[in-house]
Amino acid sequence: MSSATATAYPMPKPEGLEGVVAASTALSHVFGEEGRLVYRGYDIHELAGKASFEEVAHLLWLGHLPDGRELDELHRKLGANRDLPDAVFAVLRALPADTAPMDALRTGISALGAAHRDLFDDTPDLEEAIALAARVPAILAAFFRLRQGLDPVPPRPDLNTAQSYLYQLFGTEPEPRHWQPLEVYLVLLADHGMNASTFTARVIASTASDLCSALTGAVGALKGPLHGGAPSKVLDMLNEIGSAENVEAWLTHALDTGQRLMGFGHRVYKAEDPRAEILRGMAERASDPAFYALSKTTEERALALLEERKPGRRLYTNVEFYSAAVLAAVGLPGDMFTPTFAVSRSVGWSAHVLEQVANNRLIRPQSEFVGPTDLHFAPIESR
Amino acid sequence: MSSATATAYPMPKPEGLEGVVAASTALSHVFGEEGRLVYRGYDIHELAGKASFEEVAHLLWLGHLPDGRELDELHRKLGANRDLPDAVFAVLRALPADTAPMDALRTGISALGAAHRDLFDDTPDLEEAIALAARVPAILAAFFRLRQGLDPVPPRPDLNTAQSYLYQLFGTEPEPRHWQPLEVYLVLLADHGMNASTFTARVIASTASDLCSALTGAVGALKGPLHGGAPSKVLDMLNEIGSAENVEAWLTHALDTGQRLMGFGHRVYKAEDPRAEILRGMAERASDPAFYALSKTTEERALALLEERKPGRRLYTNVEFYSAAVLAAVGLPGDMFTPTFAVSRSVGWSAHVLEQVANNRLIRPQSEFVGPTDLHFAPIESR
Repeated sequence: MSSATATAYPMPKPEGLEGVVAASTALSHVFGEEGRLVYRGYDIHELAGKASFEEVAHLLWLGHLPDGRELDELHRKLGANRDLPDAVFAVLRALPADTAPMDALRTGISALGAAHRDLFDDTPDLEEAIALAARVPAILAAFFRLRQGLDPVPPRPDLNTAQSYLYQLFGTEPEPRHWQPLEVYLVLLADHGMNASTFTARVIASTASDLCSALTGAVGALKGPLHGGAPSKVLDMLNEIGSAENVEAWLTHALDTGQRLMGFGHRVYKAEDPRAEILRGMAERASDPAFYALSKTTEERALALLEERKPGRRLYTNVEFYSAAVLAAVGLPGDMFTPTFAVSRSVGWSAHVLEQVANNRLIRPQSEFVGPTDLHFAPIESR
Repeated sequence: MSSATATAYPMPKPEGLEGVVAASTALSHVFGEEGRLVYRGYDIHELAGKASFEEVAHLLWLGHLPDGRELDELHRKLGANRDLPDAVFAVLRALPADTAPMDALRTGISALGAAHRDLFDDTPDLEEAIALAARVPAILAAFFRLRQGLDPVPPRPDLNTAQSYLYQLFGTEPEPRHWQPLEVYLVLLADHGMNASTFTARVIASTASDLCSALTGAVGALKGPLHGGAPSKVLDMLNEIGSAENVEAWLTHALDTGQRLMGFGHRVYKAEDPRAEILRGMAERASDPAFYALSKTTEERALALLEERKPGRRLYTNVEFYSAAVLAAVGLPGDMFTPTFAVSRSVGWSAHVLEQVANNRLIRPQSEFVGPTDLHFAPIESR
């Protein structure tokens, strides 16, 4: 059998919908030229370090920051929604211990939708969004424990999302020096315009499918290294470099041999990603000083070398670069970085699903057909 | 907490990418005005009833109909790829017996990708497409058995896809009067341009994610009643009508009370869906004559009443209408109709993924932002 690409027809041109407005949204927007990210009217600098993750979730889901009563109610609902059905534990137990956590999360959310049709099989609404966002960290933490041969930790409704996630992962009371940087990370990653995973969730929701289907698909998209699947590679790169005095030689060799430096450049930002700036500050406070120094030196030299080698390409530090330092400082291993991104983004995804279904139209694009149209069938003997 | 739609911001306009060319493809095209469907150059009438499902799979994956040696090789590979890892059986066993089969399939494909990273975690290629398409019917059949308290049926490599699916569902040698109409159905549904589930698969694949992630997302999209989730509703409607003499009164009442008649109209076709015509012929041969007569009378009166009540809307019989009769004649219950659609479409989805990755560009559309951009954070006490 010949290879899949050995076709007589012309290859389709890749467009990737670049510059095509696929949907309108009031949720968030990336101003790529200016390096600005806005959630529901608030620049990300207005929120990071000031608003809690739950306040930001309320903002994205409902359109305004909560008052005290609204915030209490959301905390109560999230706290009451962290339990998982037995079927989901059984599914997570059935997976091999070396399963990639993103695969486990995708399977766990799908199983949750399968086992909890009472909760999730209606038209997605706010209660479902809360019920699912509360369970995403619980699914991940359960798998993280099970793969080590440990029992899952029962949820504690009094904890906020960042605390609860760490508590269910590690089974100990989370320290402020861990949950506070994690919370800022969760605020920063909660939404980001019409990226590929968010668009996936909206396309699925546009068929009138259910919320767990939409987020299962979104996790599958976020897993891709061109989207959310690369932050642990920043950690791998920094570990390989090892110390500040190796930076120049390592980066030069990497660029000379055509390797891509991890943590730089973005499809939309043509300026520094505003999240990178905030995460740099978090990393400086939260990380081991030697690791922060290594990160900072690597960043500075990489930016200089990229500008030298690829002038005019406007490659800046992206969100992944300092995510690695912050998440490592919080105690997470590299393979939990992208899943933790999904903990945050599950709020944005579900907010986009709510926006989609509130005014739905099936997303079914046109395609350009680049093949022939008038071939005639011949029986196999005469081929 | 107020409702999710209670926002002060303007609601986004639904566009659904109607008329927007989102991608080029050489795989298939729907000529909506003319009511034509073309796979790789062949009108669907050239293939249905002439080409086997495996020949069509080869055509979609590789761009040409196979010669004898190529077809033998594909049969051999499909036959050798129907086994499931223990983890997938354990996951399917963990799901409640009343799980919707589409939810079980979505979870099973996701679990397959999690448990079989050796097979599925590379850049998707033809071998992966074969390996997954062979296992989709095996997953469904296993769940179908398990939910009845029966053991899954081990695969038989000598059977073709339609035979093997029925054999693994029912545990008996499939009769030609069952597997032959099923095979025509599988040929007809294998691909259909840039529909929502196919587009979902391509968006996920464009992030460089894996094949199982792409098809897991596609199953979630196909589940939606605005896409593939409605053929069993045609069966429900026909069962409710019950007999030919009730047709007129039932349809009139349904239309008077604003109900939607199931099995008519399509977003793209403004003429009869060519698949409906072929399925009508299959239904006439395969169905119980009384059920066929009921279907035919219902179709004729529905078309007449729709033309009367919604003149100019060009509502024609769609693929779902006679799918119901054909799949029921094959012995499938209504809740296995859409999953059986997925058995067929898994070939088209994987062919689209191969086409996407052969010339990839991340699918990341622009969005129009319809909210404010300059709000200022105020502490919770002052909200």
